[in-house]
Amino acid sequence: MEIKKLIEPNNSKILLLVADGLGGIPHPDYGFRTELEAANTPNLDMLASKSVLGLSVPVEPGITPGSGPAHLSLFGYDPTKYEIGRGVLEALGIGFHMTSKDVAARGNFATIKPDRTIVDRRAGRIPTEESRKIVEKLQKHIKEIDGVEVILKPGKEHRFVLILRGDNLSDRIADTDPQHEGLKILDPVPLAREAEFTASVIKKFVERALEIIKDEPRANGILLRGFARVPDLEPFPERYRLKALSIAAYPMYKGLTRLLGFDTPDAGDSFELEVKKLKELWKDYDFVYLHFKDTDKAGEDGNFEKKVNVIEKLDTFIPELLDLGPDVFVVTGDHSTPSLIGGHSWHPNPLLIYSKRAGIFNKEAKFTERDCSRGYLGTIRSLDLMPLILASAGRLKKFGA
Amino acid sequence: MEIKKLIEPNNSKILLLVADGLGGIPHPDYGFRTELEAANTPNLDMLASKSVLGLSVPVEPGITPGSGPAHLSLFGYDPTKYEIGRGVLEALGIGFHMTSKDVAARGNFATIKPDRTIVDRRAGRIPTEESRKIVEKLQKHIKEIDGVEVILKPGKEHRFVLILRGDNLSDRIADTDPQHEGLKILDPVPLAREAEFTASVIKKFVERALEIIKDEPRANGILLRGFARVPDLEPFPERYRLKALSIAAYPMYKGLTRLLGFDTPDAGDSFELEVKKLKELWKDYDFVYLHFKDTDKAGEDGNFEKKVNVIEKLDTFIPELLDLGPDVFVVTGDHSTPSLIGGHSWHPNPLLIYSKRAGIFNKEAKFTERDCSRGYLGTIRSLDLMPLILASAGRLKKFGA
Repeated sequence: MEIKKLIEPNNSKILLLVADGLGGIPHPDYGFRTELEAANTPNLDMLASKSVLGLSVPVEPGITPGSGPAHLSLFGYDPTKYEIGRGVLEALGIGFHMTSKDVAARGNFATIKPDRTIVDRRAGRIPTEESRKIVEKLQKHIKEIDGVEVILKPGKEHRFVLILRGDNLSDRIADTDPQHEGLKILDPVPLAREAEFTASVIKKFVERALEIIKDEPRANGILLRGFARVPDLEPFPERYRLKALSIAAYPMYKGLTRLLGFDTPDAGDSFELEVKKLKELWKDYDFVYLHFKDTDKAGEDGNFEKKVNVIEKLDTFIPELLDLGPDVFVVTGDHSTPSLIGGHSWHPNPLLIYSKRAGIFNKEAKFTERDCSRGYLGTIRSLDLMPLILASAGRLKKFGA
Repeated sequence: MEIKKLIEPNNSKILLLVADGLGGIPHPDYGFRTELEAANTPNLDMLASKSVLGLSVPVEPGITPGSGPAHLSLFGYDPTKYEIGRGVLEALGIGFHMTSKDVAARGNFATIKPDRTIVDRRAGRIPTEESRKIVEKLQKHIKEIDGVEVILKPGKEHRFVLILRGDNLSDRIADTDPQHEGLKILDPVPLAREAEFTASVIKKFVERALEIIKDEPRANGILLRGFARVPDLEPFPERYRLKALSIAAYPMYKGLTRLLGFDTPDAGDSFELEVKKLKELWKDYDFVYLHFKDTDKAGEDGNFEKKVNVIEKLDTFIPELLDLGPDVFVVTGDHSTPSLIGGHSWHPNPLLIYSKRAGIFNKEAKFTERDCSRGYLGTIRSLDLMPLILASAGRLKKFGA
C-alpha cells in the first residue's frame, strides 16, 4: 500500500517514544521475569491499561536487526530495501552530516609489517587522543585526490571515518580489511565498472596515507571497510506530510533521523535534557520521535538490574509526556536487547498505542511483553506501525470507495 | 530476507518433531474438544509450560496443503515457488531415488475399449500383486526409447510410477488421463516447445505399452498424469550450514528430505524404531527432523479416539527426546488433519519452541491449539519457523549495523 496517497493532514500531535532495546525475555536468575515484568512502572502500566497493546517484529521473525534497520522499520521504511551501510552508520555515529555526494567507510588504524602484513588490526587499541592526532596529520596532508574531496574524522581509539565527496562516486568497493591478522592489506577492488574511478581514488589515498604514517610505532597501517553511500530515502516529512522533530542524545539516532529529514536539534546528552528540549519545541511539530538509549545499553551489558532501573527511570517521565497532550502517544522499542542475551535479539518489541481511537484496550493489562503478546494489535511488523499511528491520528483517508 | 547471508554455525543441536496432521478442531461428539485437548499429555503439557507457543499457517490462510508443500514450508522453502509435482511425490512415496535427469508421472492401469475409450479408470482396483506382474512385464519389454531410459515401478493396486531418465527432458506435458470415464485416452501433448522430444518418447511408450497389455482382462489401458521433475532446491545443509538428519518411516518423507539433502538412513517402520535410530545418530548431527505419521492417519480416517490415542503414545516419547538435551526442541505439525474433517485442512499448526532464549512462556499453558493461539509467537507462517529456530539456536548474525 502506498500510504502517501492516503495522507490527509490535520492538527493532531503524535509522540513516538522509542526505548532502545526495550524488550526482554524471562531471566532464570530473576524468577523467570523479563526486565519490564520486574520493573515497578506505575505510569507505563496506567498508560497500558488505557492503550492498545501488541508486539512488533522489527524485520522478520527470527531476524536480529541492527539499530539502523530497526529504526527504519519504525518509521515505515522497509529495511530490506533501504540499506544503511556500515560506513554511513559510522559517519552518523560521530555526528557527521553526510550528503548524497559522499561515500563513507569505517577506518581502523592497524599495526603492519613493511610488506603490509597485518600484525594488529586495532593498532593496540591506541588511545583516542593519539589516534586523533594521526587523523589530523593525515587530513592536513591529504585534502583532495583527482578532484575528490577527502574528509577524515576521528572516532574512538583506533577508529576513524573516511568520507570521499565528489561526483560519480560509487560505494561498490571491496573492503581493504581482510578481517584477519597475518594477512596483507587488500586492494580496494571495484565491484562494478562504475566503481573503477572511486577505487582508484581510494588506492591513491591508501598509498599516500601509508607513506605519511609509516613511522608511527603502532598505527602505521590503515584498514577500510563498509564503503557506503546514503540510501535514497524519501524524506519522512514529505512522505507523511508531518512536521517532524527528532530528539535524541546519541549521534547515530540524530544522524539517521537527519537523513530522513527530521529536524534534529542538539538535545543535550541525557534523557532529562531531551525531555526539556521536547517541551520547548512540542508546539511547533506534528510528530516527535523521542529516543531513550539506556535500556539498550543495560541490555547490551547483560545487566538485568540496571535495565530494570533505567526502565523505572523512564517510567517517571511518562506523566509529563502525557501532560503535553499528544493525540497519539506510542511507547515501544526498536528491537529487543534481553539482558539474558547481552545483545540485540529478534524478539518482537512491546508496543503500546495510546489514542482515543486506537481500538480495544484491557483495563487489567500492564506494559509487559506478556500482556503485549495478548494485546488487541496482535503481532505486527514494525513497518505497519506508521500506518496505525497515522490512522489513530485521523491522518489517513479511506482507501477506495 | 536472504537468511543464508546471516548464518553463523555453532555447536547447538536442534530437534524438530513433526507430528503429521497434528492440529484439530473441536469435535461435537467429544465435548467440542480437539484431539489434543482430549488427550492426556502430561509430558507435552510440561514442555508447553516452559516453551513459547504459537500457531503456524502452512501456506496461506485457508489453503489446505498436501504433505509436500507443508513440509517444504517447515524447512523454509516457499511452497508456492518450489512445486513438488504429483509424479515426483509418487516416486518419492515408493522410495525411488529421483535425480535431476528424471521426469516422473503417476500411472494408473485402466480398462479401455478397443477404441481407447475408458471404461474403468482404476482397472477395477486390481490387486497389487496382479498389477506388479503387469508392471514387470512392461519393464521387461520396454527399457529404453530413443536414448531415454524408461523405469517402471509398481505402487498399490492399479497405481504405478513411470520415470524417464535422460538428457533434455521436460515435464511440460499434458496428462493422458482425461479424468473421466467414457472419454478416450489423451495424447501426451507438449505444453512447451522444449517438451516436444519428451512428448514423442511418452507417445511411443504408451503405444508400446498398450500393445503389450492389450490382452489383459482389466488392466488393458494406462493413464499418465502429473509429469514432473524434481524442483531445483538448494540443499538444506548448505542453505543453513547444518548437518541434517531425517528420521522418518514413510518413504514420501524420506524421499522429500533426501531431495533436500538430508541424510535419510533407514529407520525402520515404527516410531519406536525411529527414536532408537535417532538416539544412535543424534551426536553426529546439528539438526534432526523426526517424523510421526500416526496422527495424520487417524485424522484421515476420521477417527477421533484413535488420534487421541496416538497423541498419547507420542507423549510418552517426549522425556527421552528431552534427555538428548537439544538446545532447541520444536514440536509441531506440518498441516492439520482434524478427524471431524477426515482429511488435511487449512487450520494452522500448534507450535511449541523449547529453548532458553525462545521468549515468553506461560506456566499455565498446555499443548493445545487453544493455548497455542494465545501464545507469545502469535500466528506465524510455517516459512518463518526456520529463522526462529536458527535464532533460538544462536545461529543467525545481526542484520545491518
